[in-house]
Amino acid sequence: MTTPQRVLMGPGPSDVPPRVLEALARPTVGHLDPYFLGLMDEIRDRLRRLFATKNEMTLAVSGTGSAGMETLFVNLVEPGDKVVIGRCGVFGGRMADVAERCGAEVVCVDAPWGQIIPAQDFIAAIKEHRPRLAALVHAETSTGICQPLDGIADAVHEVGGLLALDCVTSLGGMPVEIDRWGVDAAYSGTQKCLSCPPGLAPVTLSAAAVARLDGRARKVQSWYLDLSMVRNYWGGERAYHHTAPVNMLYALHEALGIVFEEGLEARFARHQAMHERLRDGLAGLGIEYVSAPGHGLPMLNAVGVPEGVDDAATRRRLLDDYGIEIGGGLGDFRGKAWRIGLMGHAATRRNVTLLVAALSEILGR
Amino acid sequence: MTTPQRVLMGPGPSDVPPRVLEALARPTVGHLDPYFLGLMDEIRDRLRRLFATKNEMTLAVSGTGSAGMETLFVNLVEPGDKVVIGRCGVFGGRMADVAERCGAEVVCVDAPWGQIIPAQDFIAAIKEHRPRLAALVHAETSTGICQPLDGIADAVHEVGGLLALDCVTSLGGMPVEIDRWGVDAAYSGTQKCLSCPPGLAPVTLSAAAVARLDGRARKVQSWYLDLSMVRNYWGGERAYHHTAPVNMLYALHEALGIVFEEGLEARFARHQAMHERLRDGLAGLGIEYVSAPGHGLPMLNAVGVPEGVDDAATRRRLLDDYGIEIGGGLGDFRGKAWRIGLMGHAATRRNVTLLVAALSEILGR
Repeated sequence: MTTPQRVLMGPGPSDVPPRVLEALARPTVGHLDPYFLGLMDEIRDRLRRLFATKNEMTLAVSGTGSAGMETLFVNLVEPGDKVVIGRCGVFGGRMADVAERCGAEVVCVDAPWGQIIPAQDFIAAIKEHRPRLAALVHAETSTGICQPLDGIADAVHEVGGLLALDCVTSLGGMPVEIDRWGVDAAYSGTQKCLSCPPGLAPVTLSAAAVARLDGRARKVQSWYLDLSMVRNYWGGERAYHHTAPVNMLYALHEALGIVFEEGLEARFARHQAMHERLRDGLAGLGIEYVSAPGHGLPMLNAVGVPEGVDDAATRRRLLDDYGIEIGGGLGDFRGKAWRIGLMGHAATRRNVTLLVAALSEILGR
Repeated sequence: MTTPQRVLMGPGPSDVPPRVLEALARPTVGHLDPYFLGLMDEIRDRLRRLFATKNEMTLAVSGTGSAGMETLFVNLVEPGDKVVIGRCGVFGGRMADVAERCGAEVVCVDAPWGQIIPAQDFIAAIKEHRPRLAALVHAETSTGICQPLDGIADAVHEVGGLLALDCVTSLGGMPVEIDRWGVDAAYSGTQKCLSCPPGLAPVTLSAAAVARLDGRARKVQSWYLDLSMVRNYWGGERAYHHTAPVNMLYALHEALGIVFEEGLEARFARHQAMHERLRDGLAGLGIEYVSAPGHGLPMLNAVGVPEGVDDAATRRRLLDDYGIEIGGGLGDFRGKAWRIGLMGHAATRRNVTLLVAALSEILGR
């Protein structure tokens, strides 16, 4: 059966450009091959530029974005630690679940789906609970909102805590400035705005986060994701830990190369411009956003399924008749929302025009 | 910098055939795309044939072989559980470390590096400690031995325990018969005898192992590897858990296709024949095995670095002058052993002849 050529405008994976697919298919070499170790060094440099950080501990975890999430919690949390988490969608909820599995005492600051966590609520919880770790989702893929961080890092640091940020969907599509924002730990995935296939999770830890790791009373509960060992492979010693996913790292190296050839500012501007075109096009079809006005993400457009329209049937027609994938809703938004991605290579005028035209034909509007 | 074309004769990754690299580079589709879900079903069927099992819960974990190891322990062990582990190399030791991180009370049955765990010793430990889980490494990649299982499964089952088996290096290169051997849980990796790039871990769980999972008192400590959720994506519901590494699964599908085109018996015979050719060739150079006679693996040949020969310099000359990778020793064998892989696509007469001739030139023998 031939692999179909889709237009991937869902919540990820996004379309992967041919150059990245070609890189993926380069001959496999050993995970200790000098060529490969050189490539890893370049990947680290590129990830630091992308995260806007000088963090020494910046690398790609050998799993998808959710493995990146788990990496942060297993390394930075010990049983009994207080953790404050902002929850207004699937991924904040997932963080709470992961943190609890690490034995954390979790306090959630909730907001309705489609809304942001008000900074004053989050800061109040930090002052009250004085957590060892506070975590927010920068780009909530289930609701399409971008979480502002106003004053939150300072508040977390004042109580001696670390701030962790989920940048799975934002990284490479809008500014993510780890050092300037005072974020201590962040993770992302390759299959969103980096337009690389899923399978790797870029992560970065500040010196304070590394000190937390080094000062742990007990071993990290995950052997596979234990950064105290993983860093000795990505770093100077090159000690064998697990076999790196060599070809996936070829692809990430190439995808990051493409990001910097375009330039971060141009890339972010393109995502924003395509978002505005899409927003205007959808408005013309009477389709409205379910994310809070003023807080929408450019690369993940969460819109309501119009009254009287069959959610699944419409998405199926887009896929079958046009080869276009958009995402359905999760959780509170199941059957009620569509999630339209404009991520990386897929954020083009052609795709926006195509999707709006296809929806117009299907909906008869 | 151009990716070098190596001959991968180390402990993995092994050479990946062009068809698998081409599959890897197919257009990425969504992880819920009907085409992709069909592919996953075929992967499961093929993995069942490969593991010689009818186990419903057979799938590929989204990480490398070590993630497969961790998957088994986090799902099947709860804090306080007794676990008996055979340890005569790196990977038995790794299992003990992983099990301890799950809160297990670990009892190791040790044997010297290069030896097998005597079945009577292991069975005696099982009778004494009555573990909830017993685990062995079928093919110990650090020492090149194949662990016999004589009577062990029965002994484990008699005390109500489960038997777990590390098949990372054996699967696809020699018989692995999960059901016939009474193994309850096994894992492997893609980058050994399947000749697929690293990044996925085939796992299989018996009905008894699944019952153990279903009867857990507390959540699996790893969210990412929690099979009680992962199975709902690989199984009927297709519930979103994490984004599957789509392109890696294309590659695994193709690699498994190649395995069955060759046929398991022919494939195993080829590995054995190439192993014998290599053994004879190395003997001609005065190079001797460090693995116990009669217990050597066909696909991983652990041999002593000859007296007076510089380990690292020799391996570096093989790599630089001939483009051949072989592995160095780990742990007790560091600097003392070479690990020569004959895995999957790399187990050819051409490679054996080339390596022996190259070593002859370098060693001047």
